[in-house]
Amino acid sequence: MNVEPQSLEALIGEFASLPGIGRKTARRMAYHMLSKSKSDVERFANNLINAATKVHPCPCCHAFTEDDTCNTCIERRGAKTLCVVEKSSDIIPFERSGIYKGLYFVLGGVISPLDGVGPEHLHLPQLINRIKDEGIEELVLALGSSTEADSTALMIDRMLTGIDVKRTRLARGIPMGSELEFVDEITMLRAFEGRVCL
Amino acid sequence: MNVEPQSLEALIGEFASLPGIGRKTARRMAYHMLSKSKSDVERFANNLINAATKVHPCPCCHAFTEDDTCNTCIERRGAKTLCVVEKSSDIIPFERSGIYKGLYFVLGGVISPLDGVGPEHLHLPQLINRIKDEGIEELVLALGSSTEADSTALMIDRMLTGIDVKRTRLARGIPMGSELEFVDEITMLRAFEGRVCL
Repeated sequence: MNVEPQSLEALIGEFASLPGIGRKTARRMAYHMLSKSKSDVERFANNLINAATKVHPCPCCHAFTEDDTCNTCIERRGAKTLCVVEKSSDIIPFERSGIYKGLYFVLGGVISPLDGVGPEHLHLPQLINRIKDEGIEELVLALGSSTEADSTALMIDRMLTGIDVKRTRLARGIPMGSELEFVDEITMLRAFEGRVCL
Repeated sequence: MNVEPQSLEALIGEFASLPGIGRKTARRMAYHMLSKSKSDVERFANNLINAATKVHPCPCCHAFTEDDTCNTCIERRGAKTLCVVEKSSDIIPFERSGIYKGLYFVLGGVISPLDGVGPEHLHLPQLINRIKDEGIEELVLALGSSTEADSTALMIDRMLTGIDVKRTRLARGIPMGSELEFVDEITMLRAFEGRVCL
């Protein structure tokens, strides 16, 4: 016997389709929504539609924006450093730290044959064009630390043979606040290899 | 500098208002929605509105329903056992187990002075009326195992003084599949007290 009304069942299904959300949590969310006022629920629904309608990739860097061209591409026009990230949300920690003042480029993924992602699925030609057209002097490859990310970075490095652009990647080592005891082998290996003089 | 478009920021806020969802998970959900097709997002929004519009408490038992009176109240009319639960979703495990064939009554909470919930916030008069009007013979108090639930059950028990209705509560003990090693003291105490002959 199905004890839940059909429209509630449908809403549970929607929440359960979100990343990392199981059936039980989805049910809790749906019941939570029923306890909200009608105007709260309408605002939620409108914000969903709004975000999906207004937000699109910047034609220049592929980061999410509501404008024709994103703020960063406009405000930092002429900068000679370009930071390549996998996805739009990877830009957030850079901007939050305030350390980086250059341009960004969202690659749209990393090469992963197992997931069916090949070089043709990434914005590689646009990246190369942008480096050439804007006279980029330094390319910071910030593609994460998986094997797939490493091989994608390597491939970009090879594609740039003959183009005069310095290529860098983020430092690898022990993250802030981490207990040495729980650091994995690979991180420890890289932290030791990259040790610096005091 | 705020790197996220305003409409995306608003959607993150909506997801972050869901129970148990922090800012980072909410961001992941919002970015996930941006990767969906427009029709998927519209369906999600419609399902939100639909559930909030169609679902309401049954006037008879206060469980969520889409109909004038819920299915259970109609199909089991005349049953003489009434199971009292705290909230509508507490009915699900009963129905899933298939063990119970009687009526339900959703109390709407348990008495919790710290959270500002007093007897006047619960559907107590309706419960008493229903017991009298329908000639209920057994009342199963299934209000959870917190101190607040216990004192609410005790209060209902006292309110029924003089009314001829058997009152029961669910058995307490070791749950299925649990490792004895990790069972807490109170559960162990109750499981031991309630031990039965083989």
